[in-house]
Amino acid sequence: MKDWASLTTIEEMEAATNSLLENAEKVGADTWQQRVKNQTPHCGFGEAGTCCRICSMGPCRITKKSPRGICGCDVHGIVARNFLRFTAGGSATHSDHGREIMHTLHQAKEGGNYTVKDPDKLIRIAHEWGVETEGKDIYDLAHEMAEIGLLEYGKPFGTQRFLKRAPEHTQKLWHDAEIEPRAIDREVATALHMTHMGCSSLPEALIRQALRCGLSDGWGGSMMGTEFSDVLFGTPKPLDTTANIGVMEKDNVNIVVHGHDPSLSEMVVHYANDPEMIAYAKSLGAKGITVSGVCCTSNEVAMRHGIPMAGNFLNQENVVLTGACEAIVVDVQCIFPALGPLSKCFHTKFITTSPIARMPDSEFIRFNAETAGENAKAIVKMAIENFKNRKPELVNIPSQKQNARVGYSVEAIVKVLDGVANSQVDEFGTTKPLLECVTSGVLRGAVAMVGCNNPKVRPDSAHVGLMKKLLENDIILIVSGCSAQAAAKAGLMDPVKAKEYCGDGLKRVCELADIPPVLHMGSCVDISRMLILAAELSKDSGIPISQLPVVGCAPEWMSEKAVSIGNYVVASGLDTFLGVDPYVKGSTEVCDWLTGEHGVKDWVEANYTVEQDIEKLGDLMIERIEAKRAALGI
Amino acid sequence: MKDWASLTTIEEMEAATNSLLENAEKVGADTWQQRVKNQTPHCGFGEAGTCCRICSMGPCRITKKSPRGICGCDVHGIVARNFLRFTAGGSATHSDHGREIMHTLHQAKEGGNYTVKDPDKLIRIAHEWGVETEGKDIYDLAHEMAEIGLLEYGKPFGTQRFLKRAPEHTQKLWHDAEIEPRAIDREVATALHMTHMGCSSLPEALIRQALRCGLSDGWGGSMMGTEFSDVLFGTPKPLDTTANIGVMEKDNVNIVVHGHDPSLSEMVVHYANDPEMIAYAKSLGAKGITVSGVCCTSNEVAMRHGIPMAGNFLNQENVVLTGACEAIVVDVQCIFPALGPLSKCFHTKFITTSPIARMPDSEFIRFNAETAGENAKAIVKMAIENFKNRKPELVNIPSQKQNARVGYSVEAIVKVLDGVANSQVDEFGTTKPLLECVTSGVLRGAVAMVGCNNPKVRPDSAHVGLMKKLLENDIILIVSGCSAQAAAKAGLMDPVKAKEYCGDGLKRVCELADIPPVLHMGSCVDISRMLILAAELSKDSGIPISQLPVVGCAPEWMSEKAVSIGNYVVASGLDTFLGVDPYVKGSTEVCDWLTGEHGVKDWVEANYTVEQDIEKLGDLMIERIEAKRAALGI
Repeated sequence: MKDWASLTTIEEMEAATNSLLENAEKVGADTWQQRVKNQTPHCGFGEAGTCCRICSMGPCRITKKSPRGICGCDVHGIVARNFLRFTAGGSATHSDHGREIMHTLHQAKEGGNYTVKDPDKLIRIAHEWGVETEGKDIYDLAHEMAEIGLLEYGKPFGTQRFLKRAPEHTQKLWHDAEIEPRAIDREVATALHMTHMGCSSLPEALIRQALRCGLSDGWGGSMMGTEFSDVLFGTPKPLDTTANIGVMEKDNVNIVVHGHDPSLSEMVVHYANDPEMIAYAKSLGAKGITVSGVCCTSNEVAMRHGIPMAGNFLNQENVVLTGACEAIVVDVQCIFPALGPLSKCFHTKFITTSPIARMPDSEFIRFNAETAGENAKAIVKMAIENFKNRKPELVNIPSQKQNARVGYSVEAIVKVLDGVANSQVDEFGTTKPLLECVTSGVLRGAVAMVGCNNPKVRPDSAHVGLMKKLLENDIILIVSGCSAQAAAKAGLMDPVKAKEYCGDGLKRVCELADIPPVLHMGSCVDISRMLILAAELSKDSGIPISQLPVVGCAPEWMSEKAVSIGNYVVASGLDTFLGVDPYVKGSTEVCDWLTGEHGVKDWVEANYTVEQDIEKLGDLMIERIEAKRAALGI
Repeated sequence: MKDWASLTTIEEMEAATNSLLENAEKVGADTWQQRVKNQTPHCGFGEAGTCCRICSMGPCRITKKSPRGICGCDVHGIVARNFLRFTAGGSATHSDHGREIMHTLHQAKEGGNYTVKDPDKLIRIAHEWGVETEGKDIYDLAHEMAEIGLLEYGKPFGTQRFLKRAPEHTQKLWHDAEIEPRAIDREVATALHMTHMGCSSLPEALIRQALRCGLSDGWGGSMMGTEFSDVLFGTPKPLDTTANIGVMEKDNVNIVVHGHDPSLSEMVVHYANDPEMIAYAKSLGAKGITVSGVCCTSNEVAMRHGIPMAGNFLNQENVVLTGACEAIVVDVQCIFPALGPLSKCFHTKFITTSPIARMPDSEFIRFNAETAGENAKAIVKMAIENFKNRKPELVNIPSQKQNARVGYSVEAIVKVLDGVANSQVDEFGTTKPLLECVTSGVLRGAVAMVGCNNPKVRPDSAHVGLMKKLLENDIILIVSGCSAQAAAKAGLMDPVKAKEYCGDGLKRVCELADIPPVLHMGSCVDISRMLILAAELSKDSGIPISQLPVVGCAPEWMSEKAVSIGNYVVASGLDTFLGVDPYVKGSTEVCDWLTGEHGVKDWVEANYTVEQDIEKLGDLMIERIEAKRAALGI
């Protein structure tokens, strides 16, 4: 066993949270810790997926005495329908994020609020899509690409353009299983139609559509979200930042950005750095302005600007509880409605900005591409002017903070690999050096760890616990979303310290490539980066994705998006390990389809494993990776 | 009080059902009557809308002790989110039906399985959409229109084309309230995104989107479904048929069509009339072939071919229980999964045909436009060959049957009105004669009665009971869906008998126009016909829709589609009366938004009334109609 002392432990993070909960108590604020107690135990029918509210004849609940709903649907149909609807909610949400990015791209212009920061990437994708670029103004091209991309949501015929990025083997599996996604929104609508009263109740059909709907997210909406965010805001490169609640600064105006869509946070970051704004902050008694982030908006601006990460999903109340948050500015997704009443207990301004995410007890500043500059400026100003309203007796910023190197887009990873390639024998611009590390056994494999926090799991304990175990076993981690922030907060992205906690092989790779052993690939839509990386590894090696010693893991997932992700990761050939049950345990048939040897695995060569014992979950992943190695004879 | 004796009463219908339930008992079959008992009482949280399963931190349930979910969402946010999701399920489903029709139109060809039966209507809509028709082959035009129509589902910019059919006043209300629907699927995706964990929890925003999502159905997907079904299969004209279980014929091969999409049933009807098939049936001992229908597929083929209507939603098991049903052939929506196990207790073949509606214990014959002919032929043959497998001791077809005149498309209604217009003073081709009847007080007003059956209401009792009351009060009825079938089964569409039960004014109108007092306008997607009629009445009179003495009513509704319908009917300016609560009673705020004087009414000049006492519901409708008359001074 290694000595993990210079990392921040779960216990230390919990102690910090507890000190903040004292603030909550002082002001009589409600917190998720209390609400979890109030809501426990949960409804057993809901947890098992055996309750149906799809029509108004019910609701119906399946028991031994009532084995069918009023319409006659059995437990397998009900559980499978709920699972597909859960997926559709996630796919629609992720993909709608991508759509917003495409609309922003459509409004980008020279000297405007939004510009094209990575024209090379735009041109590269244009070539991929068969769009002529020669002699075209970059903004004309951007608008043309935006329109084509937007049609991926609603075109009447054909399947998703980015499917062609997958290895041919994978494309064939999708074709044979009839899960190639058509227009993104159509897959969502089909999912709702299939699950409407009196439509599908056959688990096979419902789960097939769940995979297709997930794929329309991963290789459709999310992938466009990622790729065109890079075009607009720049493709991430490795850079250093810091993480954990201690990134907030007591003497500064603290603005926390929270949500998912970088369009807002990019602008807030821009204006918070404006000398005029800094001067204004100073004139009102602050030493400066600190922007930090929570959730995936945080990941977006960390990846591109090194903006520090104050925390992840279950830390969102903590930033307000510090008493030092002048404004928490949110866009969409994973935002606790609790922030409304909570902010009223402090001086914090809770600012909502999107018509998609309207909440009570917030100030709504309607954000759009045309007015983005003035909106962001107004928000920064509002925060500055709120500095004076702090209650000093409530200010408590726990000092926890770790260094983190972030910014590992696929492009950045390939570049890092070029740095360790042997210029005599290796090609540049491929994943081959990584494959060599894996083939030689220096690395045993890789885990893509993603997803949220969920109070059903001690916050971050599964993320960090599993990472430690995997690192010791020479398994490299690629991470995103709240999992990435858990790693960063713990110190596992510190390029100096973290390698000390790895097995010898992985440590050597980290030293050679000058990387941390846990690579931050971005926000949750950026799991599409992981798909691209897996596809590249498969193409560069000639080995199907499903045979690579790589698996996916979401140990603390919570949202519908996570299930959509799970489905597209599995459907892409990567075995996926969950630490929280997706409301399916009420149906043996559905469980068999998802986790068995002859369910989805027959279609896509991968399946799910659900295991709430996190230690066991880690062992199972290592076993699976070793089994894949053995099968390859490496 | 009138003497209703020559109509079929609810009690008589129940007695017939009871005699069929004896068959169920004989073979040990499960029926909805038993399942309702098993599922009662329902979950109080589900019924009140106060349970949330949108993320996997829960499920959460709101009580006094736990007033917020784990994320902090309060009861109003939870109820409103559930309401929006319910709407989205319905809108997606209805609209997807319309999409299937557009794809069928796209495959129509001279001499093919599907042809253009109403080219004039196609050309009329093309002109409306600004599409050049001059010198174009009708099939080229059909395909062009199909592509344009399909893009209404996914176009990146702009709002629905058919919105322009609404009166300008209505269009302005929609614009001001920001509820003009964009691409149909996008409104569904937006609804799911807004209701995803951590997005909207403000009832106002959620209900606004519920109206918009509903409008994308009513003035989008459903309207295209109706209009282009007319193009493909012919625009309905008045014709005579029969209704109730007695339409099945003991000595014939009985094929029952069930579901919603006419593409399948049109073909089945065609091949059942094929002399070759009839000869085949005779060769196997039957006297002939009878096709009858259940639910909206039945309405489609009744409206266009006079195919008899065996029953509505809660009669679907009855047709199998007769022991004389050789095949029940289904497409999509409102099909009990119970038909699978039930058909196994009899000789009946349960044939599913759509990838959207896959069910256990069925024979799946995958139906599509290209193979439609051979599929339908195979189905008819399978039914014929099944005739010999009947168990004579189980055959029991109750003799109830009524005559019904159906086929009242808007075009047909206008034509009927031309017949009663005074050729000296009136314009032809308008709704003005009807307006004159209303203005003069000969008719007091109209009620659009729609929707399903729901075991929470004694089947058909609310439909028929309310109709009787309204007819006596000189209120004309336009009906669709299962409500229409309830009327037909009772005899209220008999053009000879039914007028005897009306007030003097309405009776006179029926005689003059030779119509029944209850006008069958089609299936549930055809509620779009009612929107067009209301729009025409408003344009012809210069009176906003909301001021006309017309209201909507769904006394026994059950499906998500019904809530989508409710939202677009209200949003179109028609007060809507429900006999079943849409899972919102847990939130005073949501109830106020939907039913109050300053909720949605401030946006669209109409709102909901929910009243489970059906007698009272009728009184409230009459009051509302009289109040509108008084306000108009008529």
